[in-house]
This record gives sequence, C-alpha cells and structure tokens, in this order.
Amino acid sequence: MSITNPQGFRAAGVAAGLKSTGAKDIALVVNDGPQFDSASVFTANRCKANPVLWSQEAVKDGIVKAVFLNSGGANCYTGADGFQTTHAVAETVGAALGIGAIDVVVCSTGLIGLTNDRAQLLAGAQAAYDALAADGGAEAAQAIMTTDSVSKQVVVEGAGWSIGGMAKGAGMLAPQLATMLVVLTTDAVVPAADLDTALRAATRISFDRLDSDGCMSTNDTVTLLASGASGITPSPADFTAALTQACTDLAMQLLADAEGADHEIAITVLNAATEDDAVEVGRSVARSNLFKAAVFGKDPNWGRVLASIGTTSAQFDPADLDVAMNGVWVCKQSTPHADPATVDLDPREVSVTIDLKAGPERATVWTNDLTHAYVHENSAYSS
Amino acid sequence: MSITNPQGFRAAGVAAGLKSTGAKDIALVVNDGPQFDSASVFTANRCKANPVLWSQEAVKDGIVKAVFLNSGGANCYTGADGFQTTHAVAETVGAALGIGAIDVVVCSTGLIGLTNDRAQLLAGAQAAYDALAADGGAEAAQAIMTTDSVSKQVVVEGAGWSIGGMAKGAGMLAPQLATMLVVLTTDAVVPAADLDTALRAATRISFDRLDSDGCMSTNDTVTLLASGASGITPSPADFTAALTQACTDLAMQLLADAEGADHEIAITVLNAATEDDAVEVGRSVARSNLFKAAVFGKDPNWGRVLASIGTTSAQFDPADLDVAMNGVWVCKQSTPHADPATVDLDPREVSVTIDLKAGPERATVWTNDLTHAYVHENSAYSS
Repeated sequence: MSITNPQGFRAAGVAAGLKSTGAKDIALVVNDGPQFDSASVFTANRCKANPVLWSQEAVKDGIVKAVFLNSGGANCYTGADGFQTTHAVAETVGAALGIGAIDVVVCSTGLIGLTNDRAQLLAGAQAAYDALAADGGAEAAQAIMTTDSVSKQVVVEGAGWSIGGMAKGAGMLAPQLATMLVVLTTDAVVPAADLDTALRAATRISFDRLDSDGCMSTNDTVTLLASGASGITPSPADFTAALTQACTDLAMQLLADAEGADHEIAITVLNAATEDDAVEVGRSVARSNLFKAAVFGKDPNWGRVLASIGTTSAQFDPADLDVAMNGVWVCKQSTPHADPATVDLDPREVSVTIDLKAGPERATVWTNDLTHAYVHENSAYSS
Repeated sequence: MSITNPQGFRAAGVAAGLKSTGAKDIALVVNDGPQFDSASVFTANRCKANPVLWSQEAVKDGIVKAVFLNSGGANCYTGADGFQTTHAVAETVGAALGIGAIDVVVCSTGLIGLTNDRAQLLAGAQAAYDALAADGGAEAAQAIMTTDSVSKQVVVEGAGWSIGGMAKGAGMLAPQLATMLVVLTTDAVVPAADLDTALRAATRISFDRLDSDGCMSTNDTVTLLASGASGITPSPADFTAALTQACTDLAMQLLADAEGADHEIAITVLNAATEDDAVEVGRSVARSNLFKAAVFGKDPNWGRVLASIGTTSAQFDPADLDVAMNGVWVCKQSTPHADPATVDLDPREVSVTIDLKAGPERATVWTNDLTHAYVHENSAYSS
C-alpha cells in the first residue's frame, strides 16, 4: 500500500517499454486533495538532470498535485531537447488529470547521457493515468526500480493520519541525498511551509547521512505530498518524528540493497565538539576505500579508521582517539587495546564507534563495504 | 645508482628480519658533505606516525646528515613506546656515524598499529651502517619496498651536478602526498631555504597531484639532501626544473605500480578560473569510484565525469562542459557528442580532458582505475 495508505491518493505502475526487460517502468502518484501542499528536496549536484531542473520550478509555489516517475532513462545531460521531453511529460499528465503542468513533478532514473524516446514516455504517461487506483502504491514502487533487487516502501501510522513512502536507489548513494527517488504521502493537514521544515529536518539525519560510495547523483528527488484528507492536524513535533521515522526506514532499506555490498556499516561518532565535526569524521571513514575493502575482508582494521579521521578538520587530539568495532574497543588513546581477533565481522551489520573526546555532540553516518561485486556491477553497468 | 649518483653520498640496504620473507627491509642514506642542507615535506594527515613526529623536529634547523628507513612496520599508532623506538634508532645511527641523533631523519612503512621489535631495528641500523657504500643506492631502494612490485629510482643530470631519487609506494596514494617515502639527493650547492622552496614547488605539481585511491597516509615523507660536493651552484630555476623532473618521474613510477590497477588515468582540466578550481575538479573525478570502475570496465562513461564535476565549487556553467576521453570529445556543451564506442580504453594509459570554459588556468591530476585486484589486495592485506 505504502504511498496509497494515506487517504486522498491514487497511484499506478505500468510497463511502457522503456526497460528492455518489459518490466514496469512508469509510475504516477496523484494527490486528490482536498489540499495540495507539498515540500521537496533535490540533489546538491550542480550538474542536474532535466527532470530536476523542471521540478525545482514546479514545486516553488508549494503546490504539487501529481508526481510522474520513470525508470529506464535519467534524461540527464541531454540538453534542451531533453528538457522539452520532461515538459511534454508534465503537459500530458496535466491534461489527463485536468490540472496545470506546473503542478506535476517529474522524476527520471536510469542511464545518463542518453536521450529518452519521447513518444514512449508520453504513451506511458497516458497508460499510467488509465491505471490509477486507490491501492496502486505497490505497483508504483515496483515501476521505479533500476538495479534495486527489491522495492522499498514504508507506512508510519499517526493518530488518525499516516505517512506512506516509496523509494528507489541502489548505488551512487551519496552525500546530499543518494541516487534515489522518494515519494512521501500523508493525509495529515500540514501547510507547505511546515512540510518543508519537517522534510528538511527528516532528510538531514536520514538520507543525507547515507554515503554508500561517495558519488553524488544528478537526479535525486524527495517529494512529500499532503492531501489533508484525514482532516487532522498533528503537532509539528509528532509529524516531524513520524516523517523522520519513515525517511530513516527507507534509508535503511536503500543501504541494505546497495549494489554488491556484503556489509551495512554504521559509523557513530561520539563526543564531538559540533555535530558538523561528527558528520565530517563519520563521512571521512565512510569514504575510505581502504577501510571499506578491509570490512569486506572481515579485517577489523582500526588503523585505517584513524588514518581517515586524520584527514578531517574536526577538533580532536590525534594521540587520544578511541575506536570500537562491533562493541570491541580495539583502539584506546590512539594505540592498540583489545585484540582485533575478538571482533566478529561475519554478520552483515557492522558498527564502528569513534570517541573524539572533544565535546557533547554525536552523529551516525551509514555506508557499505567495498566488494568485488561493487566493482563488477559498476564496471559492467552503465549509469 | 640513483641516490648515490650525486657525489658525497653513501647508502645501504640490508635484511634485518623485519620482513618475514627475509627480503631487505632497512635502508640508510648518508650525506658525507661538505654541506648538509636539507628540506622535507610530510603527510598532511593529522594522525601521524611516530617517525614523522620525530623527523618533523629533526629537520627544523635545515640540517640532515642521514636518513634511516625501514619497511616491515610503520610504527604508527603505537604510542609513547613507539616514539621511543624511533628515538633509539636515531641515536644508534647517530652514534655509529659520529653525528647527533637530531640530524637523523627516520622513516617507517608497513603495517600500522603494531609495535616494531626495537632490538631488531637497532641491530639492523648497525648492519646498514656496516654496509654503507658509494654505490649502495639500488640496494637502499629495494629495502624500502612493501607491496611495490618494482623499486623506483631516478637520476636527473644538471651541468656538473645531479639529482638522484628513490621512492616506495603502491597504495594509499593520496591527496597531500601518497603512502610513500622518498629520498632525494643532490651534490649541487643549494642552501636549505632554497631547497625548501624548490621542493615545495616540485611536490606541489607531482606527488601532491597523485590520487590513486583518495586515502591519505600517516607516514609520508619526502626528504631532500644536498651535499654541495660538486661545488656548483645552479640557478634556482634550473635546480627547481630538474627537481620537478625527478619528482614527476618518481610519481609516474608510483602511479604505474599502484596496487591492482589496470589503467593509469591522467585527468587534465583546461580553462579553469583558477588553478585551485582545476585541481578540485580533477581530484573530484579521480575520487569517483563509479568513474574509476567504469574505466576498469573500459566504459567511456562521461556522464560519471560530469556528475563528479557537479559536486565541486569550481566556476563553470553546468550546461556548457566539454569532456574528451583519449582525445575523443564524447561530450560537448554537457550533451552527447562523438560516439563513445570510438574511444579505445584497452591501453593502460587513459586521458580525460575537461574544458571548464571559465578562465586561463589548468592542472593535471593522476589516478588509477578501481579493479577487482584493488579490492582483493586491500581486503586481504592489512596496512
């Protein structure tokens, strides 16, 4: 159900021939109101795909009535012609629904640098419109998959209202968002400005802290639609907490399905002078190919953790760092402590804990290990 | 000959049992004068190994008379006891040579986080002293190898003077220097302050632009010793040019021997607003695992190049970037141009050219591809 769990939404997922496999490749999510408030965040990459350039304009007034998503082609680095394709898609969806094209967010994912077949997309948009259903969430979630091995959905229930979500993404998971498309829906009554505040608070500590391979995508979009159909206005704190739970759940689903990964790694930085320091240190470790390859090899190589910390500008004493792996403090005061042989790296879930001893702040950054399968998938698959 | 090519130097390489294979593992380079001017640069990593902490103090007065180097153990994150080991090594070398310990630079490489056997090191220092020879350069270069498959040496001839050099390093090649130890010698007459200026100019555009895997090491040291034995004072320009040639030659030898690499990739950024912009853009591409895996797969994936450029703060128009691979302009104005199928990525040497169209500056950054062998070597080998 996911995105169609909240009242006031319909969705569809159809096969329009964009994927050579014949799998579903177009999704449509429609907000039937009575309200149409929305909030969105986009990739921080300066080289953005055409759908992002379009959607950034579409969301500016806080009103979004539909989200069109396609896999099988990212429409990125395709120039003015590619932008016109995105525009034509929004026009087609708008005409079918009887709304303005400017109220339609467009998201695309797949190969970059290749021109999409516009006629195929427009026919698919019409087919998706025809297939819209009040229980279409699961089909929409399937239609946005690329190298994802499973579809990602979530529902968080509030008191008389709920949040639904779907996501795609399995690689290029990086700093400010990952290569991911996320649609969140709610039937709570929340004005656009409050949606924006809640969404930024939620993504800042969920999707933004997912750093699978340090590569920032060009198409990332998270869009939150509120129908108000429940008639209930939750407190901002309750709504933000539920939204954060939904985003974190989807982020962990993305992490667990990252291309070729054998391990999910949570890097928690304790006692940092600032939260920014904690994030910088966590991200530096998350981006160390040497550390990530060591985890793949089940080698609790804390020296590579210290070497990564040393590249940051965070406050700490280089001679007084503690590091634990899966709860074993293998390094204290920057010297060997517990025997690394007692660290069991067989389970998929790995925790790294770093004590900076510099203040009261903390943060967790998530990443994956660097595996043969990652190299294989990203050398054999163009994206 | 390398480091013993210039007059006034002796060197040795001996096996002291640090390497379980019985290979040479200790090198000693001695400047017999008449002058003892020197300059050094060290890793920018804030978590530095004990030999770096020692040597940073030893070089402060501009006088260095000997360099001791060992492989088989990095003496890094080994605390106060490890520092005392480094100090004891410098004392032993100083006593044998009849010089002060503070004129001895110490360099170590190998596993981090493990304590070296002090008695083995001190016996090895004495053995290296006993083996010092005016033609000992090649043996010293062998003794500093770790995962290097070949030893790295260079000689650049001036007018009546010369520069010799040796280097080790095959992984963790990163931003400010790589995991590398480099000793450079010259018999030119150059005061310490001028050596420092020349060395920083030379390393800035050679070792500093080598970014094999984005991982900055803890032990990197480059030390330049000038004996003045030729009696000739070259112009600063001539000396800097020769030194830059020597450093670039060694840097390319390091690149070609990087762990598990199938390709050497030169990323040249043209028409940048500033040289810093050009380096930032080049480095962003050099650190994209997705781009590096694509090169391994012989896929000329220029979209991943643009996606990396987009993560930087350099000046450019995202809609007007040109990218060539091996001379083929596969992307113009951020859209597809020449057929990528015409790019031949079979040769080891790959060039990527990026035109930012934002100014007169340029820079080249070198990296390697991301291969199965890299993952294997760094998951199976602790460092």
